[in-house]
Amino acid sequence: MQAWKEYQEKNKERFLEEMLDLLRIPSISAKSEHKNDMRRCAEQVRQNLLDAGADKAVVMETAGHPVVYGEKIIDPSKPTVLVYGHYDVQPADPLELWHSGPFEPVIKDGKVYARGSADDKGQFYMHVKAMETMIKTASLPTNIKFLIEGEEEVGSPNLAAFIAAQKELLKADVILISDSAMISMENPSLDIGVRGLSYIEVEVTGANRDLHSGVYGGAVANPITILAKMIASCHDENNHITIPGFYDDVVEATPEERELMAKAPYDEEEYKKDLGVKELWGEKGYTTNERTGIRPTLEVNGIWGGYMGEGAKTVLPSKATAKISARLVPNQSSAKITQILLDHFRKIAPPSVSVNAFEHHGGEAYMTPIESKAYQSAAKAIKETFGKEPVPVRGGGSIPICAILEKELGVKIVFMGFGLDSDNLHSPNEKFNLENYYKGIETIPYFHKFFAES
Amino acid sequence: MQAWKEYQEKNKERFLEEMLDLLRIPSISAKSEHKNDMRRCAEQVRQNLLDAGADKAVVMETAGHPVVYGEKIIDPSKPTVLVYGHYDVQPADPLELWHSGPFEPVIKDGKVYARGSADDKGQFYMHVKAMETMIKTASLPTNIKFLIEGEEEVGSPNLAAFIAAQKELLKADVILISDSAMISMENPSLDIGVRGLSYIEVEVTGANRDLHSGVYGGAVANPITILAKMIASCHDENNHITIPGFYDDVVEATPEERELMAKAPYDEEEYKKDLGVKELWGEKGYTTNERTGIRPTLEVNGIWGGYMGEGAKTVLPSKATAKISARLVPNQSSAKITQILLDHFRKIAPPSVSVNAFEHHGGEAYMTPIESKAYQSAAKAIKETFGKEPVPVRGGGSIPICAILEKELGVKIVFMGFGLDSDNLHSPNEKFNLENYYKGIETIPYFHKFFAES
Repeated sequence: MQAWKEYQEKNKERFLEEMLDLLRIPSISAKSEHKNDMRRCAEQVRQNLLDAGADKAVVMETAGHPVVYGEKIIDPSKPTVLVYGHYDVQPADPLELWHSGPFEPVIKDGKVYARGSADDKGQFYMHVKAMETMIKTASLPTNIKFLIEGEEEVGSPNLAAFIAAQKELLKADVILISDSAMISMENPSLDIGVRGLSYIEVEVTGANRDLHSGVYGGAVANPITILAKMIASCHDENNHITIPGFYDDVVEATPEERELMAKAPYDEEEYKKDLGVKELWGEKGYTTNERTGIRPTLEVNGIWGGYMGEGAKTVLPSKATAKISARLVPNQSSAKITQILLDHFRKIAPPSVSVNAFEHHGGEAYMTPIESKAYQSAAKAIKETFGKEPVPVRGGGSIPICAILEKELGVKIVFMGFGLDSDNLHSPNEKFNLENYYKGIETIPYFHKFFAES
Repeated sequence: MQAWKEYQEKNKERFLEEMLDLLRIPSISAKSEHKNDMRRCAEQVRQNLLDAGADKAVVMETAGHPVVYGEKIIDPSKPTVLVYGHYDVQPADPLELWHSGPFEPVIKDGKVYARGSADDKGQFYMHVKAMETMIKTASLPTNIKFLIEGEEEVGSPNLAAFIAAQKELLKADVILISDSAMISMENPSLDIGVRGLSYIEVEVTGANRDLHSGVYGGAVANPITILAKMIASCHDENNHITIPGFYDDVVEATPEERELMAKAPYDEEEYKKDLGVKELWGEKGYTTNERTGIRPTLEVNGIWGGYMGEGAKTVLPSKATAKISARLVPNQSSAKITQILLDHFRKIAPPSVSVNAFEHHGGEAYMTPIESKAYQSAAKAIKETFGKEPVPVRGGGSIPICAILEKELGVKIVFMGFGLDSDNLHSPNEKFNLENYYKGIETIPYFHKFFAES
């Protein structure tokens, strides 16, 4: 539509400035010291929605960080698109690896560098500006609802209750989420699934106090050594996970599915070069795309214990702790795997230490059927603006609320991510390419158009 | 000697106050931010020596933290005792576990709580006050020299060069060190050896940046997992160290030695209770005293990598690091074992990661012959004040400079520690019992007396 294009071209600068303003708020949901920033961010999103033409936008309370809800209802008989996104971001640590402040967005080589630029502020904001485009050009073909939460990065602990209580308010015909990536601008893709998650913490305690490693070393269990042995035992020599029951509910992909996946563009040398590694690592018998898409994985996300400062300290520490998470595939239950993990780490600890293991959060895997009206509308929209049919891919990340959204609202979810895998999500120097931001704003209205027509 | 006892009783309060003043200086040699505190502490020790009656006391430069030298020469034809000690202390981390400030000494239940109280400020200060006692009661039977260094806790990197350059100044007939512990006040003991040390750091790098554990997890090596596997592989199921060559130069203790060691008072239930553990851990086939005395050990002193903050972060980190040290027994070479450790960790790393391994510091083990004049004088002194023959024991800790002192000065070292294993050396809430402090000041003059007479 020429009118969309013209409106977007004219307001390009402002679309960017508004996104940058949102990135300036350190809305880190995991850290309690940012509680006020979270609320400030929610208020700003509410205002953004009103400015973009929403009839209504409200900050709604939960037991944790608030949810922002907004809507533009043009005609209750028309289809309704519910946009889900999140205004919270990952912690910015380790700060010393950022080239510029995580909350002082910098534009360099056509990329916005800031925490949350791609995950997810920049991406959900494309929908706000797409709505504005359609409203201001009097061409909005659907009703739009926005559900922008503040706890995605901590596992959405309060969103399920919110959704259950607000089924009527959130009623829609499709749920649209931009919180993932595509292969590249030359090879647009659409995620047809996300993995589930089980995230736990394991604390191993040896002696009741830190000890002198000379006086006690060799006679008392070192919790770091014990924790290392526990972690080491979780993968065998083929990098297959050894925890009993872990793979029980995994449905193996069919040879046809795997054949289809193998067709997705992938250059191993390029992949290794980008990561700076000489050799890849992973479960024997599976390709990189399969390892990150259709196979469950187990990663240690953090570990600490003993002396971590400058120089040397000859201490035999009292405690060692690890944060450990598993990515799950469809048919694995997050609650079940979490229990398996907790039980396993408690069980394999020798009697010379004690273990305190607890859950952080979890969520189920989710799959979108390719044949659905929603997926087909997204594919058509991509083809319209990219000039190319999108490749369907299985995403490696997790959006735990997906399974709950579908269960409670009874409609399908379509993932329309405009980020790139190289956006440094959850890492220092997170970025979002301006080209992708604008392409997203350009593409989204076509989704509404095709979905309304279908 | 009645005169000593009377003088000490009269000056008891001041002896304590002066020690507390020394404990108030955060002389942490490992941390560059404490450089000025180190110099301030050295100056204070110099003044303490002059106040106690030394003829001469000077702060002498090294390439690192300065050395304090002091002397009282009564007659060059009399025997000379060189007292070695250190005014630097271990880092105080983890700070949150201290019940009171590590550099704000508190006296509770007859114990001084402060970093450095037992290791080694409180202990070397006993010698300063013992010298004062003998000078003020006109009964000093020997010449005394003091060598109080500021880099013991970081492996004395500059002391060897200092000693080599100052052989004439440091010339003595025996070296006396109070930087270790005794079994208990009821079971006084004298260390007849210290273990050697090899301390390294191993940094494992996977990808060139932190990654999203969903997008890349399962396809790229996780440096925490790899480091855990490397650490786990270093001990077998009998807690025997598996690193090739590690035990090559270990001389097994004779059955007679082991029989003698077994006679030292040791209550396993009490030991476990004090540490708060249900079961001990150690090399199969050896007792606790053997594990900490005559066997080399390998401990992880610290580990860190990935997200260590509040809540959860689904990161696949770029780096994981561990501080690892070995305690060595006589005949093992610290330089050789350090090289074995560095080579081993570089070698066992898979090609999916890179390893940067480097040495922190090291030192050789040391043994004092029981039949030496020096040991016998110490044993007699203990018997005089404790009313009981001391038990000879092998200490688990390391004083790397011992082997160098003996080599350069050509005389034997005698260890006369008045601390206890439960003093929380290198741990939060380090303490030194007042009873032990005063008993040390009471005992030391007898060593000088018996050594002069022998």
